Amino acid sequence: MSKPDIGLPHRSPKPRTSGRTNLIDKGVGLGMVSDILESSGDYIDLVKLGWGTAMVDPVLDRRIALYKEHGIDVCFGGTLFELFQMKGMLEEYASWLGRLGIDWVEVSDGTIELDAAVKHAVISRLKDDFNVVSEVGSKDSSAIIAPAKWVAAIKSELDAGASYVILEGRESGTAGLYRPSGEIRMGLIEEILDAGIPAESLVFEAPTKTQQTYMIDLLGPEVNLGNIGFTEATALETLRLGLRSDTLMKFHGGDDRN
Amino acid sequence: MSKPDIGLPHRSPKPRTSGRTNLIDKGVGLGMVSDILESSGDYIDLVKLGWGTAMVDPVLDRRIALYKEHGIDVCFGGTLFELFQMKGMLEEYASWLGRLGIDWVEVSDGTIELDAAVKHAVISRLKDDFNVVSEVGSKDSSAIIAPAKWVAAIKSELDAGASYVILEGRESGTAGLYRPSGEIRMGLIEEILDAGIPAESLVFEAPTKTQQTYMIDLLGPEVNLGNIGFTEATALETLRLGLRSDTLMKFHGGDDRN
Amino acid sequence: MSKPDIGLPHRSPKPRTSGRTNLIDKGVGLGMVSDILESSGDYIDLVKLGWGTAMVDPVLDRRIALYKEHGIDVCFGGTLFELFQMKGMLEEYASWLGRLGIDWVEVSDGTIELDAAVKHAVISRLKDDFNVVSEVGSKDSSAIIAPAKWVAAIKSELDAGASYVILEGRESGTAGLYRPSGEIRMGLIEEILDAGIPAESLVFEAPTKTQQTYMIDLLGPEVNLGNIGFTEATALETLRLGLRSDTLMKFHGGDDRN
Repeated sequence: MSKPDIGLPHRSPKPRTSGRTNLIDKGVGLGMVSDILESSGDYIDLVKLGWGTAMVDPVLDRRIALYKEHGIDVCFGGTLFELFQMKGMLEEYASWLGRLGIDWVEVSDGTIELDAAVKHAVISRLKDDFNVVSEVGSKDSSAIIAPAKWVAAIKSELDAGASYVILEGRESGTAGLYRPSGEIRMGLIEEILDAGIPAESLVFEAPTKTQQTYMIDLLGPEVNLGNIGFTEATALETLRLGLRSDTLMKFHGGDDRN
Repeated sequence: MSKPDIGLPHRSPKPRTSGRTNLIDKGVGLGMVSDILESSGDYIDLVKLGWGTAMVDPVLDRRIALYKEHGIDVCFGGTLFELFQMKGMLEEYASWLGRLGIDWVEVSDGTIELDAAVKHAVISRLKDDFNVVSEVGSKDSSAIIAPAKWVAAIKSELDAGASYVILEGRESGTAGLYRPSGEIRMGLIEEILDAGIPAESLVFEAPTKTQQTYMIDLLGPEVNLGNIGFTEATALETLRLGLRSDTLMKFHGGDDRN
Repeated sequence: MSKPDIGLPHRSPKPRTSGRTNLIDKGVGLGMVSDILESSGDYIDLVKLGWGTAMVDPVLDRRIALYKEHGIDVCFGGTLFELFQMKGMLEEYASWLGRLGIDWVEVSDGTIELDAAVKHAVISRLKDDFNVVSEVGSKDSSAIIAPAKWVAAIKSELDAGASYVILEGRESGTAGLYRPSGEIRMGLIEEILDAGIPAESLVFEAPTKTQQTYMIDLLGPEVNLGNIGFTEATALETLRLGLRSDTLMKFHGGDDRN
């Protein structure tokens, strides 16, 4: 049955390049995957198989196939890239992704040290075969990187060929963009945007509702958000559309009764 | 196989008017719904489709049908009522609920401002077609409403025709009955009960175990509790029956070995 | 498709006596059980049906059968033992477990007071029919038991016939081994290990990632961990193998490129 027309904000249809919702799959059962895709599939653009879970997944091929059948991009966690990179096995990694039919790859240095020039070379190498998403920011919650360094890293990685740059938040929302308490580093986000980097090229990791609300308040319903909990895509969609208390007045509070 | 008779507190069977457990469904998959209903259905009285999730649910009709088949009441979140009310579309809302076969409606003003007289008129209008649940308390965690105002609002809304009044706690347990830290406003709860309002007319939103335990300690196993997490109905039932550490001694600590 | 050989730490295959992962099932649906077992079953050794959930489970027999079919041990929560013990119904409890085909039993005194001699006698009685797991530590987060008392209790319960001793952490990780904030009582853990108790005889309750990481850092991938969240077995396995940021450098940071 069709829903009443209440006047919702515009959302791009899938496949979309803005307003993307990227989930994190920590190794849930495939029944759960099918189940979520039926009710929330339209609100999911990419699923990241968290960190190295792919390495211990006995049903990896079927998992990837399920997502692709539903028009959802699949990507492994950046930590898995870091492990292969650290072992000098980048080509083995790329070849494995290729055999699995995966089109996206995340290049990060949240845990290992990676010289900027090496990171750029890796992005440049992988962009021939994949959509590359690079990640900026440390997973170490005590590492406070200055805004100017974030800006420089983001710009140079986009120049090297990354389709998107992810701004680190971890699964817990307690590092990178966020203080260990989960509080948002608002000044950092402002400096990144003020530097002229287009928001459409960024994916903000925002696992908590407070963090999601802040980014939607700042950048609107079409902001790209990542590390969304596996069962939270529908809840996030309601935040984007002003269908939850936190954003109701923002999107519907004007005099739109006329 | 039957369970040993260990002597559990009395619980009303379904359909019941006291000791109700109201879950919140944030848009889970329908496989998960069926699955939970098989193992916990006897412990679930009403499911609220959280805030405006119903507006973006591609399987809404089947979701409602599933709950009704299992003898579980369905209600939309109060925020969705507030959106339609704010847009001057109350009758469209009521008509939509009617077409969906929904018997319950929540009337709240947790986000929008609603004059008390208007709220009472809405309750009075909707009670002809629905079981009305009205909600008292703000979703704004910094809004501390005085106990006397809670009491007056609850009494007048019951007089206007509400079947139950819900005491706000949010999905997170950090507003209304609770301080932003989740701490219980015990004095507030006492004043409400001391004012002679029957606990059977109230539904206490209590998403955390600490909050559930407090209410069961205070009012016994037959207290009505709301905003229970979707997978928590069985865990709550064990709290009600003294089958968990937190309430074990309360219900089984007396000299009942004789 | 086989995974690339990246050089992972050794893990014992199932059935195993070290490196065990014990989950807690709070009464999830059976569809969810089957689903998790397909993708994570190799990483699960025992499932505890939390506290007294078994008493209100309408599908208890099928639940037990599902786990056993997948080579996973089943145990009821210690709180349920305490209830039967307190009511003087130990033999009814043992007989019920026998009829259900359950091979494991937990003996605890986290909530009730149990004289040490009585606890030893119970362990001794039950070890004839079951694998006994005894638990040390209080569920009361304000009860700080001195390390020497932990050591004495653990030693005497192993002597009485317990196969493993569980060190209490609660489902929330806020009691026993942990302060109410979740912080780890590191000195306590050190004293227990320094007393010559073999780590292979212990199961550390560690529901949070921080707690799991600490124990793996201290004792390696083959530490026995309990009270793991129902959907967290795969995530824990990646921690054990250095496939997540938190343990990546520990297991892969050496010069193992040669």
